[in-house]
Amino acid sequence: MPKLAPYHRDLPYAYAPGIFPSHALLQARPACARRLLVHSAAADSEGVASLRARCEALGVRVETADHALARLSRKENCFAAVVFDKFSDELASDAPHVVLHRPADMGNLGTILRTCLGFGLRDVALVRPAADVFDPRVVRASMGALFSLRVRYVDDFPAYREAYPHHALYPFMLDGALPLAQAAAQGRRPYALVFGNEASGLPPDFARMGQAVRIRHSDAIDSLNLAMAVSIAAYAFTERDFQKGD
Amino acid sequence: MPKLAPYHRDLPYAYAPGIFPSHALLQARPACARRLLVHSAAADSEGVASLRARCEALGVRVETADHALARLSRKENCFAAVVFDKFSDELASDAPHVVLHRPADMGNLGTILRTCLGFGLRDVALVRPAADVFDPRVVRASMGALFSLRVRYVDDFPAYREAYPHHALYPFMLDGALPLAQAAAQGRRPYALVFGNEASGLPPDFARMGQAVRIRHSDAIDSLNLAMAVSIAAYAFTERDFQKGD
Repeated sequence: MPKLAPYHRDLPYAYAPGIFPSHALLQARPACARRLLVHSAAADSEGVASLRARCEALGVRVETADHALARLSRKENCFAAVVFDKFSDELASDAPHVVLHRPADMGNLGTILRTCLGFGLRDVALVRPAADVFDPRVVRASMGALFSLRVRYVDDFPAYREAYPHHALYPFMLDGALPLAQAAAQGRRPYALVFGNEASGLPPDFARMGQAVRIRHSDAIDSLNLAMAVSIAAYAFTERDFQKGD
Repeated sequence: MPKLAPYHRDLPYAYAPGIFPSHALLQARPACARRLLVHSAAADSEGVASLRARCEALGVRVETADHALARLSRKENCFAAVVFDKFSDELASDAPHVVLHRPADMGNLGTILRTCLGFGLRDVALVRPAADVFDPRVVRASMGALFSLRVRYVDDFPAYREAYPHHALYPFMLDGALPLAQAAAQGRRPYALVFGNEASGLPPDFARMGQAVRIRHSDAIDSLNLAMAVSIAAYAFTERDFQKGD
């Protein structure tokens, strides 16, 4: 690997910044780990020692990289980071999917990924143009949840549909015909929960592709924040699964 | 009013940054408006003209304040802002409440306020020490929802309880005895949904003060993000109300 570059979405590798995300990467995707970067000020800390031991067991190179770590996290101290190869997964064809159509905002993406994992929705498709899940800010906000998900970018929605033609589609739309509680109660399996862009939502023709769902709220707001909508939908659609397993 | 100061939580006034939050303030709390600040680059824009007309009707002074507006929003352009007196409300004693116990993070607070408004939960208590709802970043993230809510800070939870002794308390806890769906189905009225700090949650003794609730999720994450938890709870507890009115 040549000299490390500042993060950019066109790079083939990315950074898991911090002890916790680094552990999550090494745990869930050890084959993707390329290097462990350690800050000289924390070389003897317990968290770094544990990462180092794990990397040595995996044959992953460890190096001191104060400059790269400072560049990676401007505000907070970052004492360690794992450099990893970006990955792209086949989604499970029999599991529920979350499909984010042209999500633009990185701010909520990490939280969305973490919430999906929390509700056992481990398969996430992102329809381009889409925010970058490998951006260090997203990785950090996901608290490493990214590494436990199967994530796949597709160029457009037809490409998603071609790859996974059997999922029952539930597009979330402000004028969706079916309230969420009813959609969740009928929820055919496997299902795909489909969410539009933060500002513009889903194009109207999505209503014809599946069973359009609305999360009812008062007229006092125009729409729910995307991350809130995904969380509420993920909760409602998986509630039955938890009842079974509880 | 003396020369405007950079925002600080100890000031008696605050700023609604942007056309939309400014309109929301003038609409919901006209008596709090003190001045309209306008950027000279946008003095003739439609949005600013509409704010100006509204302020003139209300007898609110309008002034050009490029420097104050630039200071208010470092990254984005901010063409107008209303300076308003901070307010503190009595919460409605017969309406449901959302109680945030020691919320520390401003990042999600605006979104939480907006979501509460969206689900018709218009009464929000914040137990100190707590993040500042009047910070311009929170006001902006709430998209003005703050002004349509009743908001009250209290020094500690007993002070909240003394003021509103009749609410059925539903503290949200990782080890809460009752799953959310069941709690929402039984939901006694009026209720208070109580959420702890982002990092530490609620102290254990809250379980004895009411019916502790858990939002079930997988072991793959430690806990849900606070804003996600509030959204899911607000959705579940208000679902029946929307069924009635739908």
